[in-house]
Amino acid sequence: MATRAHIDRHYDEELQELRHLILEMGGFVEKQIADAMQALVERDTDFARLIIERDKTVNRMDVQIDDICLRLLALHQPAARDLRLITTALKITTDLERAGDMAENIAERAIELSREPQLKPFIDLPRMAAIAQGMLRQALDAFVREDAEMALVVCHQDDAVDSLTDQVLRELLTFMMEDPHTISRALRLIFVSKYIERLADHATNIAEMVIFMVKGKSIRHLDHPPSTL
Amino acid sequence: MATRAHIDRHYDEELQELRHLILEMGGFVEKQIADAMQALVERDTDFARLIIERDKTVNRMDVQIDDICLRLLALHQPAARDLRLITTALKITTDLERAGDMAENIAERAIELSREPQLKPFIDLPRMAAIAQGMLRQALDAFVREDAEMALVVCHQDDAVDSLTDQVLRELLTFMMEDPHTISRALRLIFVSKYIERLADHATNIAEMVIFMVKGKSIRHLDHPPSTL
Repeated sequence: MATRAHIDRHYDEELQELRHLILEMGGFVEKQIADAMQALVERDTDFARLIIERDKTVNRMDVQIDDICLRLLALHQPAARDLRLITTALKITTDLERAGDMAENIAERAIELSREPQLKPFIDLPRMAAIAQGMLRQALDAFVREDAEMALVVCHQDDAVDSLTDQVLRELLTFMMEDPHTISRALRLIFVSKYIERLADHATNIAEMVIFMVKGKSIRHLDHPPSTL
Repeated sequence: MATRAHIDRHYDEELQELRHLILEMGGFVEKQIADAMQALVERDTDFARLIIERDKTVNRMDVQIDDICLRLLALHQPAARDLRLITTALKITTDLERAGDMAENIAERAIELSREPQLKPFIDLPRMAAIAQGMLRQALDAFVREDAEMALVVCHQDDAVDSLTDQVLRELLTFMMEDPHTISRALRLIFVSKYIERLADHATNIAEMVIFMVKGKSIRHLDHPPSTL
């Protein structure tokens, strides 16, 4: 139940707390991604299991942020710009929570892959993950700063991840065709590349929401993001 | 700009319109899924292209519903139950829009698969898609009726789709290992099974949101959905 002190707390302060919590959740998810890639590359199953366990924290943060958004909407009846900020935050947490699920999925595949010899050195997948992670950070920075131009930059990076995913797919297909013994390992690596692609998609979704929040226009229906807003 | 007539429109009527539009969007996405599966099974590339084109309608519906939610929040400052209904609707549209993307992805793979001979008769994939479609319909019915028990039934079906996905994966892996010529086709079919799995995940997400909306408690952090609420 909301106490009097709660209700009286300064509205701007609560909005600041919301921005802060979104960044904190984003930072946690980013770390989950980096750690999951490390567990994959270093074939560290204990670490992978820890990452899977820590996904519960992401889910808790999601519930907590949603609560704050609902409280802000109920108690302060915000208008215009603030209303958009809060409803965007509500949507962003969903994307962040699912980005967290991708890190968990990578960790699961890391455990399975550790049971078989390594197929090839990891080069493209960590590179892709680093791009996706950067996109996520930039999309959240754009949210906090309400910076549509910065968000647009994120949207433009999505194609790079998509084409790296295609490249990885082609390479792994070649492995599979040349030696059927590699099939199950190659398939798991293909799944990892798809998880990273989805991470980049989540970052792009968040960036699109930020553009909608700031500019009031949707660029989601376009085949390609525009060069300027 | 909102005219006076707009503002005065009966609040309950607008809430009804919101429920109606969510069901309409859900119905459209369901049809996209059914049609994409038909295009896949009948190897109908023209139909597949039509489905890809129609995804724009899903995106438009998403923007339209978000607009209505923002207007309801701004003009009527709803409290408690209605506030939850509207914020849940905001989140549901995102899941529906992405469920629509899955139908589009299935249609894309259908076009690619039509260029090679058929690998095997379609049995499990249409069955999985039918379950996922039913889950989506039931999750949206649960939303409109604010029925948490009905939503819980949806969550319990997710495991069935997951185990069918595993079964399809194992079967297609066998194809790949026995005859490397089947690899690229089998891989595309594995992707289709993953899209259907994600459709079921979207339905489950919606159902979990409905439970949160009605009961005010999250079941998302649990490893398995509870048997009762």
